[in-house]
Amino acid sequence: MIKAGIIGATGYAGSEIVRILLGHKDAEIVWYGSKSYTDQPYGDIFQNYFQIVDADCKGDDLNALAEQVDVIFTATPQGYLASVLSEEILSKAKVIDLSADYRIKDVSVYEEWYGIEHKSPQFIKEAVYGLCEKNREEIKKARLIANPGCYPTCTFLSVYPLAKEGYIDMNTLIVDAKSGTSGAGRGAKVANLYCEVNESIKAYGVTTHRHTPEIEEQLSYASGEKVTLNFTPHLVPMNRGILITAYASLKKPADYEELKAVYDKYYQKEYFVRVLKKDVCPETRWVEGSNFVDVNFKIDPRTNRVIMMGAMDNLVKGAAGQAVQNMNLLFGLPENEGLKMPPVFP
Amino acid sequence: MIKAGIIGATGYAGSEIVRILLGHKDAEIVWYGSKSYTDQPYGDIFQNYFQIVDADCKGDDLNALAEQVDVIFTATPQGYLASVLSEEILSKAKVIDLSADYRIKDVSVYEEWYGIEHKSPQFIKEAVYGLCEKNREEIKKARLIANPGCYPTCTFLSVYPLAKEGYIDMNTLIVDAKSGTSGAGRGAKVANLYCEVNESIKAYGVTTHRHTPEIEEQLSYASGEKVTLNFTPHLVPMNRGILITAYASLKKPADYEELKAVYDKYYQKEYFVRVLKKDVCPETRWVEGSNFVDVNFKIDPRTNRVIMMGAMDNLVKGAAGQAVQNMNLLFGLPENEGLKMPPVFP
Amino acid sequence: MIKAGIIGATGYAGSEIVRILLGHKDAEIVWYGSKSYTDQPYGDIFQNYFQIVDADCKGDDLNALAEQVDVIFTATPQGYLASVLSEEILSKAKVIDLSADYRIKDVSVYEEWYGIEHKSPQFIKEAVYGLCEKNREEIKKARLIANPGCYPTCTFLSVYPLAKEGYIDMNTLIVDAKSGTSGAGRGAKVANLYCEVNESIKAYGVTTHRHTPEIEEQLSYASGEKVTLNFTPHLVPMNRGILITAYASLKKPADYEELKAVYDKYYQKEYFVRVLKKDVCPETRWVEGSNFVDVNFKIDPRTNRVIMMGAMDNLVKGAAGQAVQNMNLLFGLPENEGLKMPPVFP
Amino acid sequence: MIKAGIIGATGYAGSEIVRILLGHKDAEIVWYGSKSYTDQPYGDIFQNYFQIVDADCKGDDLNALAEQVDVIFTATPQGYLASVLSEEILSKAKVIDLSADYRIKDVSVYEEWYGIEHKSPQFIKEAVYGLCEKNREEIKKARLIANPGCYPTCTFLSVYPLAKEGYIDMNTLIVDAKSGTSGAGRGAKVANLYCEVNESIKAYGVTTHRHTPEIEEQLSYASGEKVTLNFTPHLVPMNRGILITAYASLKKPADYEELKAVYDKYYQKEYFVRVLKKDVCPETRWVEGSNFVDVNFKIDPRTNRVIMMGAMDNLVKGAAGQAVQNMNLLFGLPENEGLKMPPVFP
Repeated sequence: MIKAGIIGATGYAGSEIVRILLGHKDAEIVWYGSKSYTDQPYGDIFQNYFQIVDADCKGDDLNALAEQVDVIFTATPQGYLASVLSEEILSKAKVIDLSADYRIKDVSVYEEWYGIEHKSPQFIKEAVYGLCEKNREEIKKARLIANPGCYPTCTFLSVYPLAKEGYIDMNTLIVDAKSGTSGAGRGAKVANLYCEVNESIKAYGVTTHRHTPEIEEQLSYASGEKVTLNFTPHLVPMNRGILITAYASLKKPADYEELKAVYDKYYQKEYFVRVLKKDVCPETRWVEGSNFVDVNFKIDPRTNRVIMMGAMDNLVKGAAGQAVQNMNLLFGLPENEGLKMPPVFP
Repeated sequence: MIKAGIIGATGYAGSEIVRILLGHKDAEIVWYGSKSYTDQPYGDIFQNYFQIVDADCKGDDLNALAEQVDVIFTATPQGYLASVLSEEILSKAKVIDLSADYRIKDVSVYEEWYGIEHKSPQFIKEAVYGLCEKNREEIKKARLIANPGCYPTCTFLSVYPLAKEGYIDMNTLIVDAKSGTSGAGRGAKVANLYCEVNESIKAYGVTTHRHTPEIEEQLSYASGEKVTLNFTPHLVPMNRGILITAYASLKKPADYEELKAVYDKYYQKEYFVRVLKKDVCPETRWVEGSNFVDVNFKIDPRTNRVIMMGAMDNLVKGAAGQAVQNMNLLFGLPENEGLKMPPVFP
Repeated sequence: MIKAGIIGATGYAGSEIVRILLGHKDAEIVWYGSKSYTDQPYGDIFQNYFQIVDADCKGDDLNALAEQVDVIFTATPQGYLASVLSEEILSKAKVIDLSADYRIKDVSVYEEWYGIEHKSPQFIKEAVYGLCEKNREEIKKARLIANPGCYPTCTFLSVYPLAKEGYIDMNTLIVDAKSGTSGAGRGAKVANLYCEVNESIKAYGVTTHRHTPEIEEQLSYASGEKVTLNFTPHLVPMNRGILITAYASLKKPADYEELKAVYDKYYQKEYFVRVLKKDVCPETRWVEGSNFVDVNFKIDPRTNRVIMMGAMDNLVKGAAGQAVQNMNLLFGLPENEGLKMPPVFP
Repeated sequence: MIKAGIIGATGYAGSEIVRILLGHKDAEIVWYGSKSYTDQPYGDIFQNYFQIVDADCKGDDLNALAEQVDVIFTATPQGYLASVLSEEILSKAKVIDLSADYRIKDVSVYEEWYGIEHKSPQFIKEAVYGLCEKNREEIKKARLIANPGCYPTCTFLSVYPLAKEGYIDMNTLIVDAKSGTSGAGRGAKVANLYCEVNESIKAYGVTTHRHTPEIEEQLSYASGEKVTLNFTPHLVPMNRGILITAYASLKKPADYEELKAVYDKYYQKEYFVRVLKKDVCPETRWVEGSNFVDVNFKIDPRTNRVIMMGAMDNLVKGAAGQAVQNMNLLFGLPENEGLKMPPVFP
């Protein structure tokens, strides 16, 4: 039985780790960490776990935690893990970090986009970027996983096959993204009140969103060239879900069957990535609550562009689900253990 | 392995049976019945099951189905099962009916409220009303289960302890109910379009809703007296969830501790019924996607009334979840097998 | 031209006063008071007024304001106006208070339910309860208007005719209310975040909501007897709208036509109260954005109860619209001046 | 007093014309045309107009209608007006067509994208494309107005200044659009049911949406070159609102001030187009219920692209509001007569 501890268990991503691990037959949670609700019953904060989780919230003492568990999930604000991580902790427990602290290899890029000084750059090189479908083998051997951002995961999986196989001109790539509101976190801000979000849609972080360099870095690895792109996220009045609509020019003429074969080459054996049938567009409702990512593409012969689309649940494959998928890899379990729940609709 | 067939698999309740059985280790679905989508891949209609369910929809031939399965779920319009059920079918397979056809013991009451002639009243007596927490033992021995309605389930469980123990004046009972829109089904009607339901709330079926006699009958059994009450459902702009707010006068003075003890007497050992802490009101978000029912009550000394409240997911405990709970009882499995998934929030 | 000042212009109710007065041909706003946003352009806070309102927010100096305006609207927290109101202010400007400070005639009841010491009880007697359809004549002569609460307005107008004419047993009256989220205000609280409110419904303030004594007092006046009732509000995932479902036993047998005549007696000449056709239930979508209140009733011969229903926009007839209706009466204008906008649907 | 008739008054756009004209001091509606609800009281279908509109729905006899009115609004399916329009009708009444029948000058393009044979191509040349901010002078002299589509209006106004002034490479233009659900109309389709739309986002009509050639044609006029672009609409779970996010490469280096001056050159005097402050992104909530279009842009020096954004209410500026704006121009009234209502928030 894998013993797991969660720091940040009272955020949306943290509580989703709880939901998934409660259904995981080889793992148990022994530490529900929450700085804001220390000593309060976890099931009082997230009432969905009432009578299911019988534990009080603990603080965020990572050293104490590392003594008690095999794996630590940190669903914490940017900068937190970097400020407390140590060789000692890593020697005792695997760490899966849902923040951005170890995702970006070039620390100066991290510091520029996040506006934070990185407190433990010495671990960046060791950290493995936990996009399981791409880095499966490296993940298995890692101690420290940088769990990918929600937008980067969905963008990468939507674009990866065509980028990798050289079908698209990376200089033309534009990513227009849409996310449900849980991605904004559980902080009490006027901008996230029900009446402010409901019945509205807006772009935010235009040209400046922090997931931009993460997407660029991963797509640079995939395509073998330095990628600079536009990434524009939008806030959608729904709880969960991310939809990616990505545009790029084709470098060479290609028809549906050819590109479909490219997608299938990468995803036919992937449990969690579903390449939809011809002309079926991904919709977030079909993946809600699950670890699946639905992708598809459409060629526009009029403009010689291909439109690549992807849908997933930002809290599952975009956060907690992928974190557990990483845990499974780290501990030699089947990759989809505890993650086979079908999407919930409606 | 229990072989299951579903008639009406392309409705919201039917597809929820699919979701639950896919996670049930002792059951498998061998028949996805759908009159509207016969011969189409099930995963094309409910895209959430794409690459998860590899089967085409079949028709609604109950006799053929009974040959192949151990249990049949009918998530069909009122009157359908009554028109096709036979001794032969019942001799081959257990039947769990999610429609109202066998819920009401007095056939004339059924015919009056539903405006349908009952085509097989001979089975009414045999049918067991599948409210598991109440009729557990009878269910285990049954061939035909009348799976309770969504509103009746939530109302009954909210009111039952005080009704049974004689604390409330049943003549004063008023049930004000609120439901998400999935309860209205998947039929294409203007009244259920997004723009018609969104940003609005309304009462409907005032004094005439068909669940009224079902609630009255069950509460009559519980209280030992003939119950006539007001039941007013409301349509709420959300997908899932039912909330019950029930009002009744106390027959004898009682304080919180006394009534709490009554609720605990009936529910302390129940896995799916959670009596909340003092002053915590049930909210549908805390039970969404799960088979739990959250109940609580509040005494008003000013009016000598008690307000009884309950929240559950109308598609789970109010339909598919309770149906599977009944299946578990019918086949001697642990009652919560395949039903332990925690609520999904947010 | 009536000069108006608003204290609390950056709350939802305050900003709705702005919307209405901008379309009012006989009034202009000269003071947008906001303690939180003083000196910021009003159109930057409520971006809907960008390039429409060209003014900065001012503070909440009621004495300075009274010098400049004919009427002051206070859309402020409970206790604020009571703490600053003076004879001098009232001698200079009419005051329409959207808080509860002067609604309840018995100061001890106010202090008990609101948990605040009333700082200027000397003005309570003078204040006129601004339910225009009821107190029209007194309002015309007043200096200080206690603008009614949202729930009390909708409840009162739904129940008033039958209470006044003695058709219902006031001891049996139960009010089950449902409100959109704008009623909770614009404060940054976790409980009002999008993801917490969306896809859920709950009761709150059960037996303790502050609007209870206000409803009881007004219905006591109407019925001529002391009314004690149950009032249970629920939070609905929508921006605007209040729906009332009220239950009471009939004191004497009555049929539809008789009760319809009673409603018509009180409302046939009322511009803003619409008695719907037989069997048509009020829905909040049909009144959104307008000052209308839709009411109707249904008799249940089985239980001898009548169900009275009402729907309105909590920010308009429940706050800003009724406030302007009061202003019209105070200044001798047609009561519906600036308030004739039809409901916005969808 | 302008006498107006509406064909298609029981659709969402038609009912919005009603809402606007009811507040228009120089126009009155004398014909509420509805094929589906002929002879039924209009206020029974759209209950928001109960006791406000006292008229029954009439049929769609355009000839009879032309005798009685000064202006006809057709909010009808594609192909309807083209099949019935005649010189005689145009000689009697102005016609403002909210369908696409006369928007596209090249009839073969219309027939290809709409899959309909055009029944009266002889009127296409005469028809004036009713984008008021662009074609104001031609509109004043017209008999037949092709009221622009919702997406084309918002896209055009967002992109126009930079396209016209040659700042952007039109070959790189990509338009990613998001719309509320009222744009899908009031037809009873499963895909538009509440539970299907709620909690989801999807792209639709990818590379094939019918508004594409309309957008291309208008931007070709603006830029002086043939434009071919990608236009991808998305369905958002909200009632109203369109948001445009458009991407293009800058042809020449430019800074914020320079582009801002270009936007101001075109829009400073426009009542309905609001160029937002630096770094403020358009949001649909700030324009809901109004005829305003909020636009802004952001330069990305990293990619040398400019992101142009626009938000408006699809039923107002995208349909009924612009139609009334056209009516005002046709009849020599102030262009914003009856259209000055501020946006409704929340």
